[in-house]
Amino acid sequence: MTDLTARDVQDAAANLDPVAARTPALTTLSLDQAAGWPVVCKAESLQRTGSFKFRGAYHHASSLPVKERTRGLIGASSGNHAQALALAGRLLEVPVTVVIPADAPAPKVEGVRTLGGRVVTYRRGLEDRDALVADIAARDGLAVVPSANSRRVMAGAGTAALELLTEHPEIETLVVPVGGGGLAAGSATIAKHLNPGIKVIGVEPEDGADTLLSMRCGRRIALPDVPSTIADGLGHTSPSPLTWAVNSRLLDDVVTVTDHDITTAMAFAFRHLKIVAEPSGACALAAVLASHVPHESGTIGVVISGGGVDAPTFHRLISQTARRKEPARA
Amino acid sequence: MTDLTARDVQDAAANLDPVAARTPALTTLSLDQAAGWPVVCKAESLQRTGSFKFRGAYHHASSLPVKERTRGLIGASSGNHAQALALAGRLLEVPVTVVIPADAPAPKVEGVRTLGGRVVTYRRGLEDRDALVADIAARDGLAVVPSANSRRVMAGAGTAALELLTEHPEIETLVVPVGGGGLAAGSATIAKHLNPGIKVIGVEPEDGADTLLSMRCGRRIALPDVPSTIADGLGHTSPSPLTWAVNSRLLDDVVTVTDHDITTAMAFAFRHLKIVAEPSGACALAAVLASHVPHESGTIGVVISGGGVDAPTFHRLISQTARRKEPARA
Repeated sequence: MTDLTARDVQDAAANLDPVAARTPALTTLSLDQAAGWPVVCKAESLQRTGSFKFRGAYHHASSLPVKERTRGLIGASSGNHAQALALAGRLLEVPVTVVIPADAPAPKVEGVRTLGGRVVTYRRGLEDRDALVADIAARDGLAVVPSANSRRVMAGAGTAALELLTEHPEIETLVVPVGGGGLAAGSATIAKHLNPGIKVIGVEPEDGADTLLSMRCGRRIALPDVPSTIADGLGHTSPSPLTWAVNSRLLDDVVTVTDHDITTAMAFAFRHLKIVAEPSGACALAAVLASHVPHESGTIGVVISGGGVDAPTFHRLISQTARRKEPARA
Repeated sequence: MTDLTARDVQDAAANLDPVAARTPALTTLSLDQAAGWPVVCKAESLQRTGSFKFRGAYHHASSLPVKERTRGLIGASSGNHAQALALAGRLLEVPVTVVIPADAPAPKVEGVRTLGGRVVTYRRGLEDRDALVADIAARDGLAVVPSANSRRVMAGAGTAALELLTEHPEIETLVVPVGGGGLAAGSATIAKHLNPGIKVIGVEPEDGADTLLSMRCGRRIALPDVPSTIADGLGHTSPSPLTWAVNSRLLDDVVTVTDHDITTAMAFAFRHLKIVAEPSGACALAAVLASHVPHESGTIGVVISGGGVDAPTFHRLISQTARRKEPARA
């Protein structure tokens, strides 16, 4: 298969136009001041089902031949892809099964059920998720929709960057979280096409930097343990083959953020952008606020990729940040 | 002066186009299910400075003859109009003074200062705010920008409804919070022009229903006491003359919500829409979720008017709701 192309992303945009939300690009003076540069945030937390994942899931699922999808769709996910797939199935009028870790945030699981999806849980790090998915798919004749490792999923994810860069061509650095790598791959592909000089920076949690380490090694590596990070959507142990093929070629850099960087960004987004960002969703903003993003001129574009966090968890995470800050103020 | 017209709102939209954000119209299946009808939420909390107020403040201020505004602008506000005016002044390159109640939420006051505005505080219910504004304006040669009682402020506020109804002409009932009444007046004016059959419903806090009581009396009345409500932006004691002239003619109904209705809506917006709504900003959504809005068919449009609440206050308000609910579950 040839590499992902800008045309793939543009085709996905046309396919998604009638069903996906065109999410807003948010700006605020407070953020420009905090970052030291003009910053524009693409709020994919306001996408249908609360994350950018709907773009890829729907694009992949709707592109399947009808006879392949008629018995239903199945996918594995930390939660956001699950909800995205549940909505895609609902719109395409086919049943959906999702395989979710038993410790996934409650709103994500509830979101799947609200949309009519069937939920199968597994124990993260103990059970082989992909084998479970393959078994159920084979038994029930379901079509597997990957959360990242698919040309159409990457292309769909890239449409968020296409919208952002079309609206804000002045962006010179684009910052995106890297989990499965589909968002980064799709974004980098369309970004470099629209503006060959643009820098595209991936962001991973410090404990979960499988793409960064792979780039340093010059080949895909796997982390030995399940990453311990509050960014539950980015806790991957190894880049997917298809996303790695794109990201290893197109990402200009990958930087990492700590849990503290992430909760600081979540609090900032609440206060100044008036949006709810989940830990994974806040990583790119966290990298900018922590000055981890190399940037020399122009505007920074940031993808805030999801908002799947409940209010009590949000408060607990934010309060930890506030408490940890106190000694520094004394 | 003749009444506010749809043309006024359309002119405001043209004036605001280069400076105001086009805020998103958010939908989610969870909300449709909770409301029993399709609902579209215009998220003006994502407007510049965090509320719809920027539209009116900028439109009014930028329409003043340059020689009238050159020494500066002044306005009185519970906070959102203050921030809006501070940004308008910054864009127009004139100094801004705002008169804010001493008990206004911290983020609103901080927002004004970040934007370079001068803050003068007064004690709500004890000092005559309008006299204070008039004194400072006369002394310093400043142009007063009203928070609601101005044709251009009403017209500017109405542009949010213009955007919403242009994007969603299927809306048959439009629900807006009523504080000073500018948003309701502008919204009703453009809504009835675009769709003469549309119902426009105002929402007030139960303790602060000056417009509802005025409508019942057939004339403007004043509440004897400062309303006690968490909706700090809607705690007016009397409708403004200009907004009353429009709202008494065009609003189909005014309904009220309790503090509990409001915090329930704030929690809902966090969880399902992934946005931060302040108490005043959540009132229209609260009325829909509490089934207080008369509606018989079609889609409901809701304006979520602002997001000026800090995370600790948000958590405290939401937690009260959760605690109050517990006995019912036992």
